[in-house]
Amino acid sequence: MLTILNAAKRVVVGRPVRNDRLSHTLLPKRIALPIFASDALSSVAYAPDEILLTLALAGVSAVAFSPLVGLAVMVVLLTVVASYRQNVHAYPSGGGDYEIANVNLGKYAGLTVASALLVDYVLTVAVSMSSAATYLTTAIPSLHGQQALIATIGVTILALVNLRGIKEAGTVFAVPTYIFMASILGMTAVGIFQAATGQLGEAPSAQFTIVPAPGFDEGLVGLAGAFLLLRAFSSGAAALTGVEAISNGVPNFKKPKSKNAATTLLLLGVIAASMLAGILYLANATKVHIVLDPAREFLMDGKPLPEGYIQTPAISQIADTIFGAGSIPFYIVVAATGIILVFASNTAFNGFPVLGSILAQDGYLPRQLRTRGDRLAFSNGVLALAAGALVLILAFNADVTKLIQLYIVGVFISFTASQLGMIRHWGRELKLAKDKAVRRRIIKSRTINMMGFGMTALVLVIVLITKFEQGAWIALLAMFILFLIMWSIRAHYDNVAKELAVDEDSSPRALPTRVHAVLLVSHVRKPVLRALAYARASRPSRLDAVTVDINSEETEHTVRDWEKLEIPVPLTVLASPYRETVTPIMDYIKNMRRDSPRDLIVVYIPEYVVGKWWEQLVHNQTALRIKTRLHFEPGVMVASVPWQLKSSEEAKALQDTQ
Amino acid sequence: MLTILNAAKRVVVGRPVRNDRLSHTLLPKRIALPIFASDALSSVAYAPDEILLTLALAGVSAVAFSPLVGLAVMVVLLTVVASYRQNVHAYPSGGGDYEIANVNLGKYAGLTVASALLVDYVLTVAVSMSSAATYLTTAIPSLHGQQALIATIGVTILALVNLRGIKEAGTVFAVPTYIFMASILGMTAVGIFQAATGQLGEAPSAQFTIVPAPGFDEGLVGLAGAFLLLRAFSSGAAALTGVEAISNGVPNFKKPKSKNAATTLLLLGVIAASMLAGILYLANATKVHIVLDPAREFLMDGKPLPEGYIQTPAISQIADTIFGAGSIPFYIVVAATGIILVFASNTAFNGFPVLGSILAQDGYLPRQLRTRGDRLAFSNGVLALAAGALVLILAFNADVTKLIQLYIVGVFISFTASQLGMIRHWGRELKLAKDKAVRRRIIKSRTINMMGFGMTALVLVIVLITKFEQGAWIALLAMFILFLIMWSIRAHYDNVAKELAVDEDSSPRALPTRVHAVLLVSHVRKPVLRALAYARASRPSRLDAVTVDINSEETEHTVRDWEKLEIPVPLTVLASPYRETVTPIMDYIKNMRRDSPRDLIVVYIPEYVVGKWWEQLVHNQTALRIKTRLHFEPGVMVASVPWQLKSSEEAKALQDTQ
Repeated sequence: MLTILNAAKRVVVGRPVRNDRLSHTLLPKRIALPIFASDALSSVAYAPDEILLTLALAGVSAVAFSPLVGLAVMVVLLTVVASYRQNVHAYPSGGGDYEIANVNLGKYAGLTVASALLVDYVLTVAVSMSSAATYLTTAIPSLHGQQALIATIGVTILALVNLRGIKEAGTVFAVPTYIFMASILGMTAVGIFQAATGQLGEAPSAQFTIVPAPGFDEGLVGLAGAFLLLRAFSSGAAALTGVEAISNGVPNFKKPKSKNAATTLLLLGVIAASMLAGILYLANATKVHIVLDPAREFLMDGKPLPEGYIQTPAISQIADTIFGAGSIPFYIVVAATGIILVFASNTAFNGFPVLGSILAQDGYLPRQLRTRGDRLAFSNGVLALAAGALVLILAFNADVTKLIQLYIVGVFISFTASQLGMIRHWGRELKLAKDKAVRRRIIKSRTINMMGFGMTALVLVIVLITKFEQGAWIALLAMFILFLIMWSIRAHYDNVAKELAVDEDSSPRALPTRVHAVLLVSHVRKPVLRALAYARASRPSRLDAVTVDINSEETEHTVRDWEKLEIPVPLTVLASPYRETVTPIMDYIKNMRRDSPRDLIVVYIPEYVVGKWWEQLVHNQTALRIKTRLHFEPGVMVASVPWQLKSSEEAKALQDTQ
Repeated sequence: MLTILNAAKRVVVGRPVRNDRLSHTLLPKRIALPIFASDALSSVAYAPDEILLTLALAGVSAVAFSPLVGLAVMVVLLTVVASYRQNVHAYPSGGGDYEIANVNLGKYAGLTVASALLVDYVLTVAVSMSSAATYLTTAIPSLHGQQALIATIGVTILALVNLRGIKEAGTVFAVPTYIFMASILGMTAVGIFQAATGQLGEAPSAQFTIVPAPGFDEGLVGLAGAFLLLRAFSSGAAALTGVEAISNGVPNFKKPKSKNAATTLLLLGVIAASMLAGILYLANATKVHIVLDPAREFLMDGKPLPEGYIQTPAISQIADTIFGAGSIPFYIVVAATGIILVFASNTAFNGFPVLGSILAQDGYLPRQLRTRGDRLAFSNGVLALAAGALVLILAFNADVTKLIQLYIVGVFISFTASQLGMIRHWGRELKLAKDKAVRRRIIKSRTINMMGFGMTALVLVIVLITKFEQGAWIALLAMFILFLIMWSIRAHYDNVAKELAVDEDSSPRALPTRVHAVLLVSHVRKPVLRALAYARASRPSRLDAVTVDINSEETEHTVRDWEKLEIPVPLTVLASPYRETVTPIMDYIKNMRRDSPRDLIVVYIPEYVVGKWWEQLVHNQTALRIKTRLHFEPGVMVASVPWQLKSSEEAKALQDTQ
């Protein structure tokens, strides 16, 4: 079975890549920006829509508040960017939020951030891929309704690509990301020009009036209005996800690493803010109307829309208005947006397994995940991430608006913890620093991180209040479960380490007095003779062969064969009142232990090595059961003597190519 | 995981039973009859119904042919009984049809019979339990429509009961079986008396007229009519299933075994024939009408029946007519019939695992099934049988009429093969016999078996012709697949035996020149020290410790710890360009093999023995992969040195109670 799976894996995933190929890519800023930017920039594809459709619940007049909400998001965005520039300088090792929280706030905080980040990576894939699927259906309307299927296929392909490992990732990423930036910013410029010259048209959805939700007949007023405004802001805050990516990647920058990373981060912040501002301005200027449920909330001439109306995202409505639907620039904008969303998913495929291996290194995940799997990509992490994202996509039918409700809460938990950790960090630095200029710099950094902490903590509270019921509870529950799992794994490893630590009692020189070898015999065949030869070659103090009498005829046959070979080792026949193999052997071994407890007992078991999975079913089952039972006996060692059947050769060839 | 499953198994299944408890039950005829009779007698619960409803396809007039069909079935039944009386005398070992076919006709015929019998055991359970469920709904009409669920529950309970093993089965079986015989034969007597005195009423369904199926408007005429008659006969032949049971059970009879068994068989045949005759007579006399689909085929006063009409089996309609619905005798008849059907299923639960272990003994099934499992019941066989029956019940929604189409073909394959085998057997005996009286007896027996063969072969052909399309092909396909599986298992075992047979080359005295021990080290902890002590105790010619350098920091730590202990064994650090554990170790071992191919290499692997299944996931994964790979290397032996973690103690306690 394993061999089949391994062969399949080899075909799909390709050959492993050597360790030393890893480090040769140090990135200049112009390549680093697109690599790390896709996640942060891509949110402009859905964040404006979420702001607009949340406000639309209170009717057309409320939509006019969108620039205000956008402004608030931009302020938070730039504050967070400023804060993370401090992180980059303080932790050039690229530890990221997990390391900062772990080092400065303790392991509980670290584990909380880790859980939040793991959940958020999954959501990044789910949200970005679902949004990408929406953009694809915008370009090819006949695919409408199939978003979940498209997103599923997309995640699967991305997972396979990542299992194979990506070569020369830099340039592949750079070009489309720059095209995306250029197309969005260029569209904004054209839009502003058209507006200035009075040529800017109205969006197709401008003609619709919006039916306010119950309770919002008078627009955005009262407590409900304020709450809705906060909800719109929370959804818009999705624009901030991915900002922290650069702080994880500092070691990949060209020198001076920290300075280059900080500059890139600033660039990223400015570009992201400009794009968000541009889209929100154009949406407002062209009167793009976006609602949760077009069939219920939109009216045209006082009547519901004709059936079959498909609402497209703000970016494509704007491109439609400015360039005309079906024009080449329109398709460039939509395609670039879709591609950048796929890239954003891909950053999660890079980040998730790295974080997983760091957590495994710290003992929070099984040890075998600690080292990179073959092909330099951590296959297990990629598979876990893809599985999680697929569950979410299918559970929420690739509905971006619903998935957004789960998102962000994790991002802001790690933002807040990371900023709090930075405040502690600077406090410690300040105690050590003597030089005035240094102290001034530290105090300035600390002030920025304090602002960042205040801002992100406030947003976290807003997000929790406005989104808990909407779905954030699911993300929080997932984080809690991850926290518990990782915590128990660590506790288990700690207990085992304590139990197994070498102490005074464990002298490496104390040896068992004598070695007592026992050879298990069923039929007298080549594997038994090999096991016998191996057992004798080890020159034990005493060597016994035993066979269990299940069928008296067969036992006689075995005894006769044994005698015929004139083997100078006695064959003991064990009675089996239950006609069963394992218990008589266990009783025999236990008696032996009782008689001479300081001896080492070595049980030699001949085993068949087979080539096909079903052959395993018809061989070795009894050997396996005996081995499992023997493992529970202290002072007993099991020596498996394999006999390679001819059919195993093919399987071996497969194993060796790994 | 295993420990949990084992504990659960213990709770459900109870403690194992000793070998020597098996043989103390030698049966007198009065106990043997009910034990072996339930399968054969129970078919009277559904065979008459199948005859009636098949004939009803040609309208009311055709139903009058049912006594004729019944007579034909009875002739076959008594012929088969006479034939099997010869089997019982010839094979007092109770080999059954498989042994007779195997010995006299060769292994292909034997395996064919075995496949047919295995499939038929499954069908016995499915048919009997489905019919029992129907009788339960007859007694409790509110359960109507739930037959599949009831049959599923019944099979599950029966499987559990058999997994626990049945004590004192004899008397438990005897009483209800005698009650069943008494109630059916008693009802027949009362019915005949009522008919003689003119008091016999009409069945509730007597008033219905039957709409003939298309093409049968003129009743049972022409080729189609003849074919329908044969189909009715084929279905009625279900009454013969279970007749062979006694021939498998000869060793369980009191002495003189063969004579007692033959007498019991004759008794069984006479009783079964009388009951079948009685039911068919009464069904005719009370004008019981049974059809496939009451809603479509029945008319009352020229109109379809009102909705909700529930057709009950012939036996309950007769009991209703003679004793009155709801009377105590009515309930006794229905309940006794239902119970006998459950007993019939149970005989399959006894027979199937026995046949399975005989087949495993002959190498047609995996070896580990060869010996009886614990609790003297062969757990694996019981589980396989229950699973097969459940699949059939659910696939056919516990519809007895549909299941009957699959039945019988297997029975008659084994009847026919067995009779042919007996003819061969007597032929051989005749050659050896000199004494005239003996020769006369042999010729007489052979004549009877010849008649049996002719009869059963004819029925087999009829069954194949009339039922192939109706569902017998499914049973044949299943037999064919079983045949292929068992054949390949045997071929595999034969090949392995040939490959592994001790020949001139395999001298038991040739020993490897030197023993080269390799100890795998990850961290320097107690398990490694134990493995080291064991390795040194075995005094190898050379002992090396190796560790793989995945993380340089950890490796340094390990090397330091090793040096600190001043262990007189060098620790080799293996480089790992792929940051992976298995390949460097394999390369190291392969190099070693190349340098000194005649040495034995013993790889010592410290292993953690854990208590909980999830602990297994976070430990030993790498050890497992290394072991698997090492098994493909000839000249390499793997020595597992277990270290029992504290958590393993509970699991050990569980293992030890097994």
